[in-house]
Amino acid sequence: MNVTRRGRKEHFRTVTFEAATNSVRLIEQRLLPHEFKIVATPNFRATARAITDMVVRGAGAIGATAAYGLAQGALAFRGRDLKKFAGHMDAVFQTLAEARPTAVDPVNAMNDMRREMARGETVAEQQALALAAAENFANEDVQHCEAIGRHGAKLIRNGMRVLTHCNAGWLAFVDMGSATAPMYAAQAQGKKFHVFCDETRPRSQGATLTAWELAQQKVSHQIIADNAAGHLMQRGEVDLVIVGSDRTLGRTGEVTNKIGTYTKAVLAARHKIPFYVAIPLSTIDWDLKRGFDIPIEERGEREVLGAWGVNSRGQREYVRVANATSGARNPGFDVTPAELITGIITPAGIFKPKELWARRRELGQAK
Amino acid sequence: MNVTRRGRKEHFRTVTFEAATNSVRLIEQRLLPHEFKIVATPNFRATARAITDMVVRGAGAIGATAAYGLAQGALAFRGRDLKKFAGHMDAVFQTLAEARPTAVDPVNAMNDMRREMARGETVAEQQALALAAAENFANEDVQHCEAIGRHGAKLIRNGMRVLTHCNAGWLAFVDMGSATAPMYAAQAQGKKFHVFCDETRPRSQGATLTAWELAQQKVSHQIIADNAAGHLMQRGEVDLVIVGSDRTLGRTGEVTNKIGTYTKAVLAARHKIPFYVAIPLSTIDWDLKRGFDIPIEERGEREVLGAWGVNSRGQREYVRVANATSGARNPGFDVTPAELITGIITPAGIFKPKELWARRRELGQAK
Repeated sequence: MNVTRRGRKEHFRTVTFEAATNSVRLIEQRLLPHEFKIVATPNFRATARAITDMVVRGAGAIGATAAYGLAQGALAFRGRDLKKFAGHMDAVFQTLAEARPTAVDPVNAMNDMRREMARGETVAEQQALALAAAENFANEDVQHCEAIGRHGAKLIRNGMRVLTHCNAGWLAFVDMGSATAPMYAAQAQGKKFHVFCDETRPRSQGATLTAWELAQQKVSHQIIADNAAGHLMQRGEVDLVIVGSDRTLGRTGEVTNKIGTYTKAVLAARHKIPFYVAIPLSTIDWDLKRGFDIPIEERGEREVLGAWGVNSRGQREYVRVANATSGARNPGFDVTPAELITGIITPAGIFKPKELWARRRELGQAK
Repeated sequence: MNVTRRGRKEHFRTVTFEAATNSVRLIEQRLLPHEFKIVATPNFRATARAITDMVVRGAGAIGATAAYGLAQGALAFRGRDLKKFAGHMDAVFQTLAEARPTAVDPVNAMNDMRREMARGETVAEQQALALAAAENFANEDVQHCEAIGRHGAKLIRNGMRVLTHCNAGWLAFVDMGSATAPMYAAQAQGKKFHVFCDETRPRSQGATLTAWELAQQKVSHQIIADNAAGHLMQRGEVDLVIVGSDRTLGRTGEVTNKIGTYTKAVLAARHKIPFYVAIPLSTIDWDLKRGFDIPIEERGEREVLGAWGVNSRGQREYVRVANATSGARNPGFDVTPAELITGIITPAGIFKPKELWARRRELGQAK
């Protein structure tokens, strides 16, 4: 998407590859929204570290970063010995796979790439196939988000007030985003609408990342405390909810997403406000039989007990807000049942959550 | 309630009067939870300023502070001229009434006091009556909270997990609090239970004031992000919700309270978890016909866009969390309909919200 720097509008993907220097270029997301900076990782180990250290986060974005990292590792190999190259690639794969052990996108992307690479008969051919496969992965991620945008934009009408939670934006993908794609597509069609961004405590990705994105794209928006959505719905000030998902169960239509998503779904159902979930197909889990079995990460207390921000001297700082002798509970995600979800926006169209299973073939389960 | 200082447990009311120095002594609530300090206001103007500057906040606490301020103003008068004294008292009343113009408790308390004072025939008699009336107001506030605690404690059983929102604790009253009174009473009866304190963004009164109170009284508790309650309820980890109220409509049973209360009530209803509201009788509005007409204060953006806390050097500091080019909406309160409320805990007993009107005489409407 576009970023305005020094008065000039430029287009950026969250992750790109620079062949001339064999480096991966990433938006340094830990500095956002306070500073916009592109960092380059000079080798696959640095790329893995950028994933571990959360320079880049979000399913699609780390998938593409690992894919480029694998190509980067392949291209760094000097020699023609295919066996030595295979051993080298095992090490590259391992390093990148371990960068964020719970994520599935990097491993899926790299497995696909290695199948592609196997078609090459020399090291040079395999290196070229690796780069082509990585570019292909990134471009497909963008195309999927564009398709989500195309389908989802139909839901947004002029004058609507749209609520979103957390960041399922372009920063979490290569471009466009999932929950934000319908907004960007609707804007491109000239529609006027307003977005309420849930702050999304405790990590505040709504107030930081989503708000920054929408501001850069000049989408009308306001940040609200997570407590405020119910009141706004009650007063008739929300027309549509669109959120993302970390994992959607293909068998039941249940959606796992950032903590607080379930609450917004319950409120939307009470007020008969359409509640949509925008997802890339890679996040559908076709195996698990019930949402209750999804393990919910219990995170550390520190996020709940305070906040990161910028102080009056422009320095980034953590402040402890809470009473020093109190502890916290910090579940990171929650599960929203199918009955509360109006529709799932996928690159292949919009479906009722319960329809996913019947359409599993066209939604890529075979893959 | 008790506060442990330098290893010693001491009992403190939020506001007391020291006759020897004619000063009002207040817990400096703006420093909590980071520092516990008692400040003394040497004259009625300083007492009014403490109300304005939010050294003290909460309906019952500022009512008692204004009452003591009126007595303080009366006692500072030198002379025997009843007419001059009456003029002086008009000025004292005016100054204290204007300290927090939207609050009703200070004005109600001071009107009652002036009726009492009128029984005195000399300046000295009226001064003595003023002090007695102020002490009486503070003691009644404590007795009402104790009665709320007595009735509400019956709802808390051993092993329960109780959720509360914002601070309707002793810091908002003279002692005990409203929503917290049942917890303190249940603890005194030896019951074991656990409290989840909603952080209560954007002002975080749950993470700061309520958590501090519960820690001082050694009540088992954890702070949670406002987003987490729905998930905990879904997993069966919340048994009871008790909140306070700023204004309860006697005709409809609707409850106005801190933003986010409505959301918790909707969630509790979905999960069939009892949802109680603890209120002193002074906050019942017997006139207004529907909650939709309650004006909801729209507060400034700054609270939503950042947070106050203590930095690594131990200094209190505001940090901006949000994207600098984004704005915010900040409604301060919301309205919960009667259908979502299991019961209203009053000093006179626990009632269904719709019962209030039929019982208006015993609930003091005549007054």
